[in-house]
Amino acid sequence: MTESRILTIKKKILGKNDQMAQGLREEFDLNDVFVANLVSSPGAGKTELLRATMSELRKNYVPAAVTGDLATENDAHRLAESGALAKQILTGTMCHLEVDMVQNAIKGWDLTDLDFLFIENVGNLVCPGDFDLGEDTRIMLIATTEGEDKPLKYPTLISTCDVVVINKMDIAEAVECDVALLERNIHEVRPGVPIFKTSAKKGGGMDAWIAFLIEQFEVKKAQAA
Amino acid sequence: MTESRILTIKKKILGKNDQMAQGLREEFDLNDVFVANLVSSPGAGKTELLRATMSELRKNYVPAAVTGDLATENDAHRLAESGALAKQILTGTMCHLEVDMVQNAIKGWDLTDLDFLFIENVGNLVCPGDFDLGEDTRIMLIATTEGEDKPLKYPTLISTCDVVVINKMDIAEAVECDVALLERNIHEVRPGVPIFKTSAKKGGGMDAWIAFLIEQFEVKKAQAA
Repeated sequence: MTESRILTIKKKILGKNDQMAQGLREEFDLNDVFVANLVSSPGAGKTELLRATMSELRKNYVPAAVTGDLATENDAHRLAESGALAKQILTGTMCHLEVDMVQNAIKGWDLTDLDFLFIENVGNLVCPGDFDLGEDTRIMLIATTEGEDKPLKYPTLISTCDVVVINKMDIAEAVECDVALLERNIHEVRPGVPIFKTSAKKGGGMDAWIAFLIEQFEVKKAQAA
Repeated sequence: MTESRILTIKKKILGKNDQMAQGLREEFDLNDVFVANLVSSPGAGKTELLRATMSELRKNYVPAAVTGDLATENDAHRLAESGALAKQILTGTMCHLEVDMVQNAIKGWDLTDLDFLFIENVGNLVCPGDFDLGEDTRIMLIATTEGEDKPLKYPTLISTCDVVVINKMDIAEAVECDVALLERNIHEVRPGVPIFKTSAKKGGGMDAWIAFLIEQFEVKKAQAA
């Protein structure tokens, strides 16, 4: 099996995924659903951020989420605490989500009812980057606990994201994170990308973050009308 | 391209890696080098633990390290601060190390001079699990900042490791980590696996950890003699 043969196969898999993602994106657009793909290291706080975000959004909108993990339904249960629709995707040994998994997970959901769909990817700083899931926006979480150098050492995913959320701001000092340096490193890899700072667990920074999501949704809806 | 065809190709790649790993392992054995493959999420503290470990080991032994990242030579520079030999492996977009990368990295090193070789894998809780690097032991780091549920949600890698190090113990309280629960979850996935608790940055727990490594090395050497 030659290197070029393996690359050809990878391209075919990606090609098929991208084609399906485009179809799903059109379906989301048709139904005015704003879709966000959340990527990060394991433990950056995606589930906690989503739980808090959906709790707040539910006051005026209809959010839902699908969440990918290798095993356990823990995250779907935690997300359901927000009162929003949530479904677990179990990937087994797979290190990322592909669009057919998302499509299967939302089967039976009436998209006309939804305003926001959050896709919580498998915690992995590399592999999810290649796979379009039909999202409007790719959101990357970085926790203050991960070290300021991560954007430079793992540039793949961050260089394809539309928004960055620095989470666990409440413990930045305790873990000796230089947040200004982290921001500089993010912008070195992805110049100009919007950065939000949150403490999902304690509630800090959530207002600006949620206002941003609502604005994105309203703009999409207005453009479609 | 059918699913079974893709699986066949994956098996071939793994088969070739395993074969090369066996050859490298024999070379390590012949030269009494104790080899450890360190895996974890990005930011769990592999580099800091290795730097501290090699500084200490150097008093009586000859340690060396190779370290994998997608980009930057930062980690090799940090590891070299210990005074030990250290080499960076740049993986580009690759999410794990394969044995040929390790083989190339140590080319030119005289293995008869070495006692310990540490291989710091790419930070990734899933993909490195499939790839044998010729190591004697696979060490998994989990930081207290990652959440107690990680062993259950990402069981692949932990179920193939020989030792677990819970790192960042010094901030366990600040990040509200229930260490006893984390240990229970580790043992649920990997019953009986030895667990060490360290604060690589502050020095806590390092004595027991280093004594364990030295014992492993001495046992290997005694068995070979």
